[in-house]
Amino acid sequence: MPKQKTIIGVIGGSAIDEKNQALAYEVGKHIALNKAILVCGGLGGVMEAASRGAAENGGHVVGILPSEDKNSANPFITIPIPTGMGIGRNVLVVRTADVLIAFPGSYGTLSEVALALNVGKTVIYMPGSWNISKIGQVSSSLFKEAFDAPQAVGLALNSVIHL
Amino acid sequence: MPKQKTIIGVIGGSAIDEKNQALAYEVGKHIALNKAILVCGGLGGVMEAASRGAAENGGHVVGILPSEDKNSANPFITIPIPTGMGIGRNVLVVRTADVLIAFPGSYGTLSEVALALNVGKTVIYMPGSWNISKIGQVSSSLFKEAFDAPQAVGLALNSVIHL
Amino acid sequence: MPKQKTIIGVIGGSAIDEKNQALAYEVGKHIALNKAILVCGGLGGVMEAASRGAAENGGHVVGILPSEDKNSANPFITIPIPTGMGIGRNVLVVRTADVLIAFPGSYGTLSEVALALNVGKTVIYMPGSWNISKIGQVSSSLFKEAFDAPQAVGLALNSVIHL
Amino acid sequence: MPKQKTIIGVIGGSAIDEKNQALAYEVGKHIALNKAILVCGGLGGVMEAASRGAAENGGHVVGILPSEDKNSANPFITIPIPTGMGIGRNVLVVRTADVLIAFPGSYGTLSEVALALNVGKTVIYMPGSWNISKIGQVSSSLFKEAFDAPQAVGLALNSVIHL
Repeated sequence: MPKQKTIIGVIGGSAIDEKNQALAYEVGKHIALNKAILVCGGLGGVMEAASRGAAENGGHVVGILPSEDKNSANPFITIPIPTGMGIGRNVLVVRTADVLIAFPGSYGTLSEVALALNVGKTVIYMPGSWNISKIGQVSSSLFKEAFDAPQAVGLALNSVIHL
Repeated sequence: MPKQKTIIGVIGGSAIDEKNQALAYEVGKHIALNKAILVCGGLGGVMEAASRGAAENGGHVVGILPSEDKNSANPFITIPIPTGMGIGRNVLVVRTADVLIAFPGSYGTLSEVALALNVGKTVIYMPGSWNISKIGQVSSSLFKEAFDAPQAVGLALNSVIHL
Repeated sequence: MPKQKTIIGVIGGSAIDEKNQALAYEVGKHIALNKAILVCGGLGGVMEAASRGAAENGGHVVGILPSEDKNSANPFITIPIPTGMGIGRNVLVVRTADVLIAFPGSYGTLSEVALALNVGKTVIYMPGSWNISKIGQVSSSLFKEAFDAPQAVGLALNSVIHL
Repeated sequence: MPKQKTIIGVIGGSAIDEKNQALAYEVGKHIALNKAILVCGGLGGVMEAASRGAAENGGHVVGILPSEDKNSANPFITIPIPTGMGIGRNVLVVRTADVLIAFPGSYGTLSEVALALNVGKTVIYMPGSWNISKIGQVSSSLFKEAFDAPQAVGLALNSVIHL
């Protein structure tokens, strides 16, 4: 009997430093090794590094693209969803993910963190990502810090088990 | 090297007769046997029969759901996309599919046929589906009739090869 | 006490002949003279002619645009809604309208007719528009023919009264 | 000759204290007195207080609603846009507004602030709203503080002049 796959979202900037690129790759790899599916915005930077980590380890990678064109996806997306909704696709990334792992990024990443918390999804944030607990009252049970890939993916999977 | 999967959309009514249920199952099965991915609206009727045909034959099934709730998916969806966009999700079904196979259905199905032709995608229509070539000028190269599952999936795959 | 305005949608092709241009202008004019608001897709052809008819007669014109850019609106739009959703904005035109008046058009227009009937809204169709009652079972109470502007707007307003 | 109206967005929580309720009313009032149109999410709290301020002073109020139902709008919305997109309508509030004024709110408000800055729109933030400049590098020219209604609306209008 087929069943729904666990889907983990990875969000973060389209331009990142080498350290975060390596970390995003590891996160994608651990997602695939745990037989979960990776969903992301389908473009470069954090998205591409994580997609590569998942795809090179046998995982499926859903890319929810801002444009209508599947060719805009990074080379590691196996299932492109070309929304044609621009930044509005961020809502769909959040809704498709059962839980999200947030890397450093700009306002687009911040919007995804906020949308995820708005709909009651857990956000695991990596060092340097938006730490909104510093500026507002954030439900601690939904907003958790992680420092490496196994911890991030482990916390993510654990949050889904307890959905 | 991973690469993008071919994605075939199956559209049609949420209430169907036994004959179309069997035909939709066969279409889903042939999609899976050809290693393509099935995308549909994720609910019952044509969508569920095709999903079952794909899932029971090892295929992946993307369900682009109107609600925000993954539990609204039929039991054969493996990758649920809970859009929360209601009937607006029809646009995403059309954009995600590389080509569509249309079964009999109501206005929702008609909207998907129209949206697909609007964005230049091929629609293979099964007997009894909306035959809009009877009421307007339809580009013949995009609107093709099929009578059984192997023919429908074959025409669909062939249209993607020539994209 | 302020209250919600009646909103009438006008849909149809972005390229039209002179006769339909004049007719769309008259429809827009009668919408404005009846103190209703016009909503349309905000671009050229039927949309622009109707927008002009409304705007030149003191009406407000909501243009629900496919692009993110308000400058893409025709010159008679007073309230632009730049969705950035491409053809997906058709769903929003249909939802914003209390009732729709359909002119001849291509698949985009057909998708709007189908979406409107799907959500249970009345569609008044002008001569030459998609007459889907010829190819399927259409609820006659929602799909009505009109031949001139006063009749179209009158039928539209009357359908809203009985909502 | 008709022309596009200036549209100012007001965002903030659906539950607010009396002080912010009064302040939001004043902001709505000043928007109307300056002949601009108010756009908001159409529901209660900050949205309703600002809508009331605008509507009671002769202004038009566009409410971009999460549901498909115009009856879900607060009583001061004159032009309801029932998107049926849930929290996804936040993107449309941001795109419709030429500039936004942010009151205190929860994650939904934060998502709108982030989306606005992402698409390059000015956000005027009132005391107690999300001050994201404390946790990230925010382009100072797009993120401005205001302390009362005339200042907020003045800064908003001024930012549009220099678009």
